[in-house]
Amino acid sequence: MFKVSQADIEAAHERIRPFIHKTPVLSSQSINEMVGAELYFKCENFQKIGAFKARGGINAVFSLPEDQRSKGVVTHSSGNHAQAIALAAKMAGIPAYIIMPKTAPEVKKKAVAGYGAEITLCEPTQQSREENAARIQEETGATFISPYNDYSVITGQASCAKELIEEQPNLDTIIAPVGGGGLLAGTALSAHYYKPGMTVYAGEPEGAKDSYLSIQAGEITKVEKPSSIADGLLASMGDKNFEIIKELVKEVFLVTDEEIIEAMRIIWERMKIVIEPSCAVPFAAILKNKEVFKGKKVGVILTGGNVDLAKLPF
Amino acid sequence: MFKVSQADIEAAHERIRPFIHKTPVLSSQSINEMVGAELYFKCENFQKIGAFKARGGINAVFSLPEDQRSKGVVTHSSGNHAQAIALAAKMAGIPAYIIMPKTAPEVKKKAVAGYGAEITLCEPTQQSREENAARIQEETGATFISPYNDYSVITGQASCAKELIEEQPNLDTIIAPVGGGGLLAGTALSAHYYKPGMTVYAGEPEGAKDSYLSIQAGEITKVEKPSSIADGLLASMGDKNFEIIKELVKEVFLVTDEEIIEAMRIIWERMKIVIEPSCAVPFAAILKNKEVFKGKKVGVILTGGNVDLAKLPF
Repeated sequence: MFKVSQADIEAAHERIRPFIHKTPVLSSQSINEMVGAELYFKCENFQKIGAFKARGGINAVFSLPEDQRSKGVVTHSSGNHAQAIALAAKMAGIPAYIIMPKTAPEVKKKAVAGYGAEITLCEPTQQSREENAARIQEETGATFISPYNDYSVITGQASCAKELIEEQPNLDTIIAPVGGGGLLAGTALSAHYYKPGMTVYAGEPEGAKDSYLSIQAGEITKVEKPSSIADGLLASMGDKNFEIIKELVKEVFLVTDEEIIEAMRIIWERMKIVIEPSCAVPFAAILKNKEVFKGKKVGVILTGGNVDLAKLPF
Repeated sequence: MFKVSQADIEAAHERIRPFIHKTPVLSSQSINEMVGAELYFKCENFQKIGAFKARGGINAVFSLPEDQRSKGVVTHSSGNHAQAIALAAKMAGIPAYIIMPKTAPEVKKKAVAGYGAEITLCEPTQQSREENAARIQEETGATFISPYNDYSVITGQASCAKELIEEQPNLDTIIAPVGGGGLLAGTALSAHYYKPGMTVYAGEPEGAKDSYLSIQAGEITKVEKPSSIADGLLASMGDKNFEIIKELVKEVFLVTDEEIIEAMRIIWERMKIVIEPSCAVPFAAILKNKEVFKGKKVGVILTGGNVDLAKLPF
């Protein structure tokens, strides 16, 4: 039925296992009391590069046939996907060409450069990103790897929920944030294969609610100028992801930036984990919809921790 | 030979297991490359109350005979031990009387009060702490629980290294910070019983080097006015701890406040963990003495993460 099979997820997990961390699952009694549910946080903020994107990036790079892979990989990203591809390329010993918006934080540019990737700065528009990517592909023969609209990326991300379900087999609910939809599609697929009947939810910022609208409309619906403190979730849903998400995700919960910041603060205070705003979206959604999660055993994907401690919003 | 047996540690671990987190062990390839060793960080910053002290506090409270326990417990502490005893008393359903220096951070007073403990503020001197503790013991019949110079506390702290060795049985070296010596004594005992031949080191701030001096002199030697950013390590070595430490700990490495701050920063940047200054001392000691740790498999106890994000020193 889906273009990604359980065997594909198994193969991806085996492929990336030597290169990734099996991240810990943490819980907090005081948060559970606050919510009235049992939450199990899968801490991808402790993943390589500080985010789940390492899974998809490494799987995508190592899935390429060797002759194609040797020519290198190219992508555009403002952050974690860029680091993921740069790291994966370094592990594979191939060139990585990363197109980053000029406006990307200095610390993220430095991290990408630190993995030996070649950075091209572009305007912070989708058009400029795509033009630069096309040009570099033509010049170098490198393969473009989408941050999310790519089956090998989706399959890599799926390994995260797979690990969580293996560690906590009694989960009945799982929630992930949604931007472009790679993580959410992968999460939904792992739930579908490894824990049939599990309910899958998503959290999305109000200011970038294209997934919410797309599911309502039954077709991909864009938001004109997406804007949120959750800067990792501004991308529009990819069509490969949407095919999966519209079948398997029960509901997308919207949260405001204020709710996201409050969720970040609570996770720091109660769990001693510093997460990026995008990462706090599912927990913000739970706090906002306690009646939905009441009494449930809920897996929460904490996606990443790449945030500047000097610029925390709380 | 020692007053704490392997069976005591087993019993303590079983006693506290329902109440504590089995904290994760994390590692970082970039830190390993930086150091030239394999470091395994036992993350007690994710322990209940955000610090390993929960282990000793809970063991001490639940080890008391029931008629004695019901009268409550009293202690003096500027921080994590206070929270540990307050939490343990709440779990046991008994009163906790906590003496805190007036100068303790507001957030720590709030946390202790949050567990329902009765707080008495005192002058920030050892004498004022002890006078207040004695008075409250007399008034209430509560049992005094030392932050570190107590076998049930030592035995509780020992469970931390026990878990680490169980999870990483190939460790050949382990390092913990030393203040009063409860954690270090417990760590050394678990190394002794569960991994004989393992080398045990300690890290200590230059400005509070009483353990270093005590081991040199072969007897407890105090430092007049201990001072360090590592405010959890200012206490003087207890005699019960010293009996164990002088036998089992190979060396105490001293580090400066600057080295502690740098270690905190690196652990945040590479591992996405925010730790308190006291917690960074062992890693600072490793960075300063790379030749000692080269090629070793080293367990590092990360003791706690109770720090104000708005006042980070880096």
